[in-house]
Amino acid sequence: MKVSKMVHPQALCETKKIGARTRIWAFAHILPGARIGADCNICDHTFIEDDVVVGDRVTVKCGVQLWDGVRIEDDVFIGPNATFSNDRFPRSKKKPKSFLTTVVKQGASIGANATILPGVTIGRGAMVGAGAVIVESVPPFAVVAGNPARIVSYCDAGPSDEFSSGPPASRAIPAAVGKSRVKGVFVQALTDVADLRGNLVAGEIGEFLPFEVKRFFVVHGVSSRQIRGQHAHRKCHQFLVCVRGSCRVIADDGKHRQEFLLDTPARGVYLPPKTWGVQYDYSNDASLLVFASHAYDPADYVRDYDQFLRSVRR
Amino acid sequence: MKVSKMVHPQALCETKKIGARTRIWAFAHILPGARIGADCNICDHTFIEDDVVVGDRVTVKCGVQLWDGVRIEDDVFIGPNATFSNDRFPRSKKKPKSFLTTVVKQGASIGANATILPGVTIGRGAMVGAGAVIVESVPPFAVVAGNPARIVSYCDAGPSDEFSSGPPASRAIPAAVGKSRVKGVFVQALTDVADLRGNLVAGEIGEFLPFEVKRFFVVHGVSSRQIRGQHAHRKCHQFLVCVRGSCRVIADDGKHRQEFLLDTPARGVYLPPKTWGVQYDYSNDASLLVFASHAYDPADYVRDYDQFLRSVRR
Amino acid sequence: MKVSKMVHPQALCETKKIGARTRIWAFAHILPGARIGADCNICDHTFIEDDVVVGDRVTVKCGVQLWDGVRIEDDVFIGPNATFSNDRFPRSKKKPKSFLTTVVKQGASIGANATILPGVTIGRGAMVGAGAVIVESVPPFAVVAGNPARIVSYCDAGPSDEFSSGPPASRAIPAAVGKSRVKGVFVQALTDVADLRGNLVAGEIGEFLPFEVKRFFVVHGVSSRQIRGQHAHRKCHQFLVCVRGSCRVIADDGKHRQEFLLDTPARGVYLPPKTWGVQYDYSNDASLLVFASHAYDPADYVRDYDQFLRSVRR
Amino acid sequence: MKVSKMVHPQALCETKKIGARTRIWAFAHILPGARIGADCNICDHTFIEDDVVVGDRVTVKCGVQLWDGVRIEDDVFIGPNATFSNDRFPRSKKKPKSFLTTVVKQGASIGANATILPGVTIGRGAMVGAGAVIVESVPPFAVVAGNPARIVSYCDAGPSDEFSSGPPASRAIPAAVGKSRVKGVFVQALTDVADLRGNLVAGEIGEFLPFEVKRFFVVHGVSSRQIRGQHAHRKCHQFLVCVRGSCRVIADDGKHRQEFLLDTPARGVYLPPKTWGVQYDYSNDASLLVFASHAYDPADYVRDYDQFLRSVRR
Amino acid sequence: MKVSKMVHPQALCETKKIGARTRIWAFAHILPGARIGADCNICDHTFIEDDVVVGDRVTVKCGVQLWDGVRIEDDVFIGPNATFSNDRFPRSKKKPKSFLTTVVKQGASIGANATILPGVTIGRGAMVGAGAVIVESVPPFAVVAGNPARIVSYCDAGPSDEFSSGPPASRAIPAAVGKSRVKGVFVQALTDVADLRGNLVAGEIGEFLPFEVKRFFVVHGVSSRQIRGQHAHRKCHQFLVCVRGSCRVIADDGKHRQEFLLDTPARGVYLPPKTWGVQYDYSNDASLLVFASHAYDPADYVRDYDQFLRSVRR
Amino acid sequence: MKVSKMVHPQALCETKKIGARTRIWAFAHILPGARIGADCNICDHTFIEDDVVVGDRVTVKCGVQLWDGVRIEDDVFIGPNATFSNDRFPRSKKKPKSFLTTVVKQGASIGANATILPGVTIGRGAMVGAGAVIVESVPPFAVVAGNPARIVSYCDAGPSDEFSSGPPASRAIPAAVGKSRVKGVFVQALTDVADLRGNLVAGEIGEFLPFEVKRFFVVHGVSSRQIRGQHAHRKCHQFLVCVRGSCRVIADDGKHRQEFLLDTPARGVYLPPKTWGVQYDYSNDASLLVFASHAYDPADYVRDYDQFLRSVRR
Repeated sequence: MKVSKMVHPQALCETKKIGARTRIWAFAHILPGARIGADCNICDHTFIEDDVVVGDRVTVKCGVQLWDGVRIEDDVFIGPNATFSNDRFPRSKKKPKSFLTTVVKQGASIGANATILPGVTIGRGAMVGAGAVIVESVPPFAVVAGNPARIVSYCDAGPSDEFSSGPPASRAIPAAVGKSRVKGVFVQALTDVADLRGNLVAGEIGEFLPFEVKRFFVVHGVSSRQIRGQHAHRKCHQFLVCVRGSCRVIADDGKHRQEFLLDTPARGVYLPPKTWGVQYDYSNDASLLVFASHAYDPADYVRDYDQFLRSVRR
Repeated sequence: MKVSKMVHPQALCETKKIGARTRIWAFAHILPGARIGADCNICDHTFIEDDVVVGDRVTVKCGVQLWDGVRIEDDVFIGPNATFSNDRFPRSKKKPKSFLTTVVKQGASIGANATILPGVTIGRGAMVGAGAVIVESVPPFAVVAGNPARIVSYCDAGPSDEFSSGPPASRAIPAAVGKSRVKGVFVQALTDVADLRGNLVAGEIGEFLPFEVKRFFVVHGVSSRQIRGQHAHRKCHQFLVCVRGSCRVIADDGKHRQEFLLDTPARGVYLPPKTWGVQYDYSNDASLLVFASHAYDPADYVRDYDQFLRSVRR
Repeated sequence: MKVSKMVHPQALCETKKIGARTRIWAFAHILPGARIGADCNICDHTFIEDDVVVGDRVTVKCGVQLWDGVRIEDDVFIGPNATFSNDRFPRSKKKPKSFLTTVVKQGASIGANATILPGVTIGRGAMVGAGAVIVESVPPFAVVAGNPARIVSYCDAGPSDEFSSGPPASRAIPAAVGKSRVKGVFVQALTDVADLRGNLVAGEIGEFLPFEVKRFFVVHGVSSRQIRGQHAHRKCHQFLVCVRGSCRVIADDGKHRQEFLLDTPARGVYLPPKTWGVQYDYSNDASLLVFASHAYDPADYVRDYDQFLRSVRR
Repeated sequence: MKVSKMVHPQALCETKKIGARTRIWAFAHILPGARIGADCNICDHTFIEDDVVVGDRVTVKCGVQLWDGVRIEDDVFIGPNATFSNDRFPRSKKKPKSFLTTVVKQGASIGANATILPGVTIGRGAMVGAGAVIVESVPPFAVVAGNPARIVSYCDAGPSDEFSSGPPASRAIPAAVGKSRVKGVFVQALTDVADLRGNLVAGEIGEFLPFEVKRFFVVHGVSSRQIRGQHAHRKCHQFLVCVRGSCRVIADDGKHRQEFLLDTPARGVYLPPKTWGVQYDYSNDASLLVFASHAYDPADYVRDYDQFLRSVRR
Repeated sequence: MKVSKMVHPQALCETKKIGARTRIWAFAHILPGARIGADCNICDHTFIEDDVVVGDRVTVKCGVQLWDGVRIEDDVFIGPNATFSNDRFPRSKKKPKSFLTTVVKQGASIGANATILPGVTIGRGAMVGAGAVIVESVPPFAVVAGNPARIVSYCDAGPSDEFSSGPPASRAIPAAVGKSRVKGVFVQALTDVADLRGNLVAGEIGEFLPFEVKRFFVVHGVSSRQIRGQHAHRKCHQFLVCVRGSCRVIADDGKHRQEFLLDTPARGVYLPPKTWGVQYDYSNDASLLVFASHAYDPADYVRDYDQFLRSVRR
Repeated sequence: MKVSKMVHPQALCETKKIGARTRIWAFAHILPGARIGADCNICDHTFIEDDVVVGDRVTVKCGVQLWDGVRIEDDVFIGPNATFSNDRFPRSKKKPKSFLTTVVKQGASIGANATILPGVTIGRGAMVGAGAVIVESVPPFAVVAGNPARIVSYCDAGPSDEFSSGPPASRAIPAAVGKSRVKGVFVQALTDVADLRGNLVAGEIGEFLPFEVKRFFVVHGVSSRQIRGQHAHRKCHQFLVCVRGSCRVIADDGKHRQEFLLDTPARGVYLPPKTWGVQYDYSNDASLLVFASHAYDPADYVRDYDQFLRSVRR
């Protein structure tokens, strides 16, 4: 049986590197150098230049152009009129020596009419909202919106069922005390007392922490658009308490992901080594206190999510 | 005489449901199931799917796509590259069971390059600004802009001359004391005295109100993007005073519409029954005091503008 | 039996106008023109000039001087080292043409070491806190403290048991719905709803108000140290709702006095005619809405508390 | 040799309970029940009632009255015209059933013209500023001023040289890194880094702390007039870092006392067991982070300063 | 040799007014009245109406439409899906009497998916960021972004190498003391002292300024989106100190341009005559103090940048 | 004719250094070392120690004590119960080696029950409000009140008619443009323009300033209780503009004194050399810009008011 590509008679398809079952629709124009995977759908009025690679099962809706330097991984969705670029400060007739590379990682979606500045990476499973203007890279599974785009939440799906669902329905729910579905991570109740003299936050960490505290740090003065964290530790344990204001903490063991809203000093989150952690959505007055089991060691950090996945899946 | 549709030779028009005098331009592509009304103008590089209905006298400028689930009523203008969508959290190759329906009501205009999220309704005569990103429904005659879009004003035109003009030139003008051009509506001067002890607003309502006060209510804590009101009463008279801060009140009798800026407690607006009223653009500190002639009765409210128009035009 | 005055041998008492049973203690010095009532206690180290009148049952503790122009009514208490004055901008050897008159009304108390600037009146039953510096007149039954002194509460005692007790133990208690112990005064529950669009306060006044609304007024922008009210109406009924912030309302029928804390728009207070009313302790953001049964009429106001007492006691 | 009391011929001394070498000056008046210790100085124009006890070496300057219920311990200084009271809400001719007791503890001083409300205790060695109005009890060694009086600093003198000197000359000096003169207490330098993501405070506490961290707490939201601490621990070590804002820490070993201004997260203070600690003068935004060597144990607290002194002096 | 235009076989080019070497790509559609210059590149899926003029060396990327009334000068870059408009309040079937004119000046660039409202001018060499929504005219060399678009910086390139580069890499660097590369401009160190009484900023300007101060002015209350300056002086020298907050100063001598961040009162910038100056990016609390060598004289101002360039190049 | 002193029979006057016509009243007690001038009035219950000097025409009201170290110049008024002290941190039985000297300069008045901490100077003609607590020296002619006392205004009277009147009636009147009654001082109109871009303050100082600007400074961050200035210059001219907020400037030539309210940047005040200047009552946001004719030279300052008076009266 022959399952071949489909090219509409009104399309201009100049490349031969097109995967099985991929369809190219009317008024689309693909230059000779482009490589397109299998099972893709390239809609009307699209334009794809030479130095472009598109993975399998990718949807490119109408009015989209993919310029030299754009890399689209498998399972990506690109909404109508979403617009890429490849020159940060374009001037007519002044081509840069090389174009910036823009990467859309596996399973990400780009909303209708979004704008993607050159040189960014849209992370694995991320979701770019309709009309968003992306000026910096988007972390894995983040949901972004606005101009300029900001993270508004994270996708709920864990890595084991990734790309299957939208943003978390439960994101307004504060961290519940006890074990979580992320391996080794738990939420610990602390003491928070307010009396006439002020507030007292306290925790008997000697009783519940499975490590000896060798270091502490306090994060504050973070604007709500900043992200702190986005890494895993090889050996270091951490315990996080938001002693003022609020922030969100995501813990991910490579199989499951969970978001913890820390909006009270009465609860802290323990993150064991080999846990990918993200902190974001700080309130203006947030102070995040972190206890760590080791002195600072740059070699202990895993900062690439794909590397993290490989290491925990080994 | 033959008044037929026009289809450009470079267009792909696969439907036969096209009204008289409608023109389809080059590189447009219309799928077989689409229904297009009369006197429309479908410009270059547009794309219209099957489950789409377009009314009469509609303009669709270049670069626009109308997806399954989009409904365009009569007299609508859709600017160039304005972008619709029909899946709130799209993932490649994961179609939702059914697409959300997006409706653009009669006479509305959508500005150039605007983005319309799925499932919203753009109200009768509303105007969506260029570049706006619409994330929630737009009320009748509202003017919206920004990302995400917010109401910035209301169209000045009354229903009898609706769709004929843009936003009010006079919108910065406070309510003038006396009768308005909306039937029965008047602006009443009140007393506003400031002395060393504070401010006193007072009105001898027994002298000028054409009804006996049976109920009062006070609206406050409304953020500037919220709208309160948007309904007519069948029997109930109202008198509105903004005792603190400011807000805008629109009165509409089905023939004429007028906007009143209430930015002083020294003036109130009387709204007789059978008047469509909207309150919006509350300042952060606004307190709107309302006197009513009847106790609260849900059956007295008309909340659908089209129903209101039918009732007053009868 | 002879119930005569007592003058300590070490006292200098140059006046003969001393009432029965009054005692003058050691090192006190009273000039010839002074008039002292009966049953007084004039303690050690006091000094009383000529143009001074002291009522009956007055206590003047040690270290107090009463200067020309001071008038002390019956039942007054003057604490130790409390200090009067009679020249606003004194210069040595430059006597003013006439001294300002300072009046302490019946039953008032002046705390230890308080300072009284010249020309003020300390109202009936008022209480001046220890160490307070009085720079303006003090209303009847007010409790004042600080430098400069501010009203901190009102005495709890009703006029029928006036001077018998201190400030209200119950003053932090919000107004309770239902009848009060002040004649005709009641507290009415209203509707206060908060939703995503803001707050709505409403009352079906046609159902519970024993009058028809002819006038409304709104008081706002009152600093916490100001008092609004302090009068009775002859004919006018009023209904008070604090639609924003909080304030305290005192109602007094000439026999009983009660304080109502209005700290929610969900409750209003009805004041019938012939009720003395005081409003004070406004929060910065307070808006007090008042409905009235009559148009404004200056002749309807009784602004003097003594006159009010006479009228209701007749 | 005769070391007798001295009574000025113009004084009225009706008591016989006067200690050796005490002097009573002109125009003073002491009632029969009063008890006065040895080596006191009772100046002109003073007045002392019956139910009064005055210790040894007490100075009572001119114009002071001591009322029934006042207790003055040894070594107290009472400045001129300082005024006591014994009835919180005095009314003429209405004596309370019993008078409130006011106690001035050993070594305290009361400034000129201060006002003392009834029922308070002025703590050991405390200093009441001239003109202050005392409405609540004053802790040991605190310096208070204002109307109402607030703590403005603590006396600098250690307990071994207590009552010998005034407030610290050096109080504006931040904590200096290194050992202090209080036994075992030291100040540790920490890291404070600000980068684009916010501020990072860090300390490798494993390297310098002479205890293992078993507990932490964070104190915040303390108004500047509040005091936290005021106790000693029997066994627990503590390390204090003010990670935001500033506060003052007093450490007292029973011999020496020192005040540390913590106004940077770059320095922390270590307090060993058996150290009396006080924290006060918090800035509005202060967050004080404390590490402790033991779990919370109420039995570990010594909350009475006299008991603390006894325990460390044993 | 023949250097002719190129029209793709799938393009619809109805005009004959096309310059040499210009290329028209697939699915482009150009109406008969349009005029296109030489060396242009008109990409796929573009649409150009009749009343449009395009200069030489212009790039029009895919998905762009140029409507009646649009004027594009030489060397302009228009990014993909950038969207023009020509009717401020469009209604279907209601054409305005005449379309607003939109001008893009020489060398300007318009980023991908930007939206340009009708009637504005994009200034010489300006850069419109991707996704920006332009609602008002853009000054020469300004870089704008956002919805609505605001100035975020200025292009770094001097006029002698204009259009060659992007915004300044060095823009976060405060003004360095000493000479700059702009002719005659230098940065001067000043004194900034804070003591208990407040802050004192001082400069012995008699020592370093090459002019006698005849005039001063202080600019404050400028919102961050405002620009002050944008002119050159013929004779007047200036010295600028930001005594509070911060702002940015651009100096341009017609050959070189440099930006100075003034974020401390400890440094000031001297601008000689014949220097084009711009001030922008004021912090909310900025106060910019300026000393000048001449009295105010409107004739001394050169307000048109092209005129300035001509005068200094003469 | 014999104009002798008068001593009341109940007074204890142990000194012989009493001036003519001075009267000593009942229960007053004056120790042997005290020196009292002529025409004084020493009232009941006063106490004066040995090391005290009182000038001529001084009034000391009842209940006042003058301790060792107090110096009262001519024409001073001391209100009833006003309280002096002579030991900043008194402890019983611990006399300081020497007492602090407190000076009340000529013509000053001290209100009833005021408290004077030791070591301060109450300036010439100053007025201390009733109940004030004086913790720092009071400048000449200042009016102070509160606890702690703050300057609330300055006496209106010029030095040539000093002590004749109270605080200025006209103090709320802004500086009027033109010459003042103080020698050489004038108010200059400046330009203050507000437009959409912010505010512009400008002054052509080359035209009106009678000096060449050699120095500038800006005063800001001054709390309302601080005073800047209080000195005269020998040679230096100054020109003051409050470019933000407001403050008060007093100019005094030794004959006349005038207060200028600078509440707009549209006016500045010129102060020639040999003018005593005071600035006070700064608003929180005040920025006072000062131009000076000379570089900073400490020798140019006259900081003592009496010295200033002598120099200008020579």
